[in-house]
Amino acid sequence: MFDLDGYLAERSARIDAALDLRMPPAGARPARLHEAMRYSVFAGGKRLRPVLCLAAAEATGGSAERAMLPALALEALHTYTLIHDDLPAMDDDALRRGRPTNHKVFGEALAILAGDALLTLAFEWMGRAALDAGPAGARLVVELAAAAGSQGVIGGQAEDMAAEGGGKDPDRLRYIHEHKTAALILASVRIGALAVGAAQRDLDALSAYGRALGLAFQIADDVLNATSDPEQLGKAVGSDQARGKLTYVALYGIGEARARAAALAEESAAALAAIPGDTAPLAALARFAVERSR
Amino acid sequence: MFDLDGYLAERSARIDAALDLRMPPAGARPARLHEAMRYSVFAGGKRLRPVLCLAAAEATGGSAERAMLPALALEALHTYTLIHDDLPAMDDDALRRGRPTNHKVFGEALAILAGDALLTLAFEWMGRAALDAGPAGARLVVELAAAAGSQGVIGGQAEDMAAEGGGKDPDRLRYIHEHKTAALILASVRIGALAVGAAQRDLDALSAYGRALGLAFQIADDVLNATSDPEQLGKAVGSDQARGKLTYVALYGIGEARARAAALAEESAAALAAIPGDTAPLAALARFAVERSR
Repeated sequence: MFDLDGYLAERSARIDAALDLRMPPAGARPARLHEAMRYSVFAGGKRLRPVLCLAAAEATGGSAERAMLPALALEALHTYTLIHDDLPAMDDDALRRGRPTNHKVFGEALAILAGDALLTLAFEWMGRAALDAGPAGARLVVELAAAAGSQGVIGGQAEDMAAEGGGKDPDRLRYIHEHKTAALILASVRIGALAVGAAQRDLDALSAYGRALGLAFQIADDVLNATSDPEQLGKAVGSDQARGKLTYVALYGIGEARARAAALAEESAAALAAIPGDTAPLAALARFAVERSR
Repeated sequence: MFDLDGYLAERSARIDAALDLRMPPAGARPARLHEAMRYSVFAGGKRLRPVLCLAAAEATGGSAERAMLPALALEALHTYTLIHDDLPAMDDDALRRGRPTNHKVFGEALAILAGDALLTLAFEWMGRAALDAGPAGARLVVELAAAAGSQGVIGGQAEDMAAEGGGKDPDRLRYIHEHKTAALILASVRIGALAVGAAQRDLDALSAYGRALGLAFQIADDVLNATSDPEQLGKAVGSDQARGKLTYVALYGIGEARARAAALAEESAAALAAIPGDTAPLAALARFAVERSR
């Protein structure tokens, strides 16, 4: 049996140490901005995206070291989306991972700038990684940008906002899930594989894995928002329903949502069969995505 | 005598056409987001940064075509800074280039997302350009990210906000000018040169040109804010003083500001002597930076 808890603890510690080393120091000018960036990066996140990136690199025969900088870029980018999503003009959330959200501590202006700066830093890191990854290294940059852009994560967030209080449109729900969350999870495994020059066959299998995993993860998120308690989750609970958000739970109910997330996690794990390398961590992460409590 | 008006008209038209071709179509999902992005990109900007990028590429012996995609990336990035700077939590501006600002038309949430999406699109384009530019192509991405990040443009904006209503600190003013504006103008010429593989000597000369030009441009901006009229400028006038902004004019007065901008523009043009190629457009652009009326 794969020891996922031990694996996640070891990986998180390595990722945190690398982030600490690479982030501009808190004292660097402008100090308050760098403090705001660090506040959200070191807020106790699960590090799921960088962990997936490193695991994908290793499963396809590469080393975690070569995928580390791209992995950090994914986490910086993910953190920016959280800061901006929490803003008063967006989801207006006061709590994230059990702590006050960025704008509650640093004010709206600095929270916007800290998000912008983390997004930009993600591309600086991905650009540096691209320089080390050979002639096609810049594919890493393009992959991240396409996943994160107006037809990726940002597009999903825009539709999510537009759908609030609207009708129960299954097509729109699918669009939101595929873009807002799944796009970056898919990109995380693809980028890990691209960073170590994985074979096309492995890249294809990882893409199938990542696509199903991303959807499973977001459906599990919808379930957690409806069923968890705030202390456990570290953020507001029941807020989706209160805001009339278009979620899997709102459309199909909790039972159906749980069943669908489990089926997608299985589909995700099944896609790993095509990869000859060690996929035990990726398989365990697929289960984790739907069985986690936060 | 170099015909700058004709040159700018021809270049702007080419840049606008290329932007139109490359931007996601206004009808692409999410339509309102793409409309918001296009609204600010096609708001009648001067296209100074892409024009500088193309001119630098040509002055160092390359073709404008090879620098076009990096040039578009610079304009997308510049446009995002304007959208976010105008937000209520930041400078709270209602007018930009004679039209309502992005958040006035599309609301705060979409304005934040449109800015985020343009920043991301800038890196998608720069990444694609990097793939065409050979093994060191990703330097383009790193150059842009470093210029735009927390120790570049965003750092300058953070200090600018923090300085409002504060003391008259010349060191802080210099930091704001060097980062908020000059960093991206410097990057524009460097990226043009890097995109066509310019010689190190040319890159050094262009860096001196860009650094002086960027400072000249921002001091001229401070003068325009204090002396122009809103119709001419297309945005609020006198707002710097009303807000207690730390500007060159506030610190040294209008006469001294004009003299300093002119001296920097000359310093900038003088740096071009080291470049064997045709630098007439760059020399004319240095004059334009301080003699423009908007």
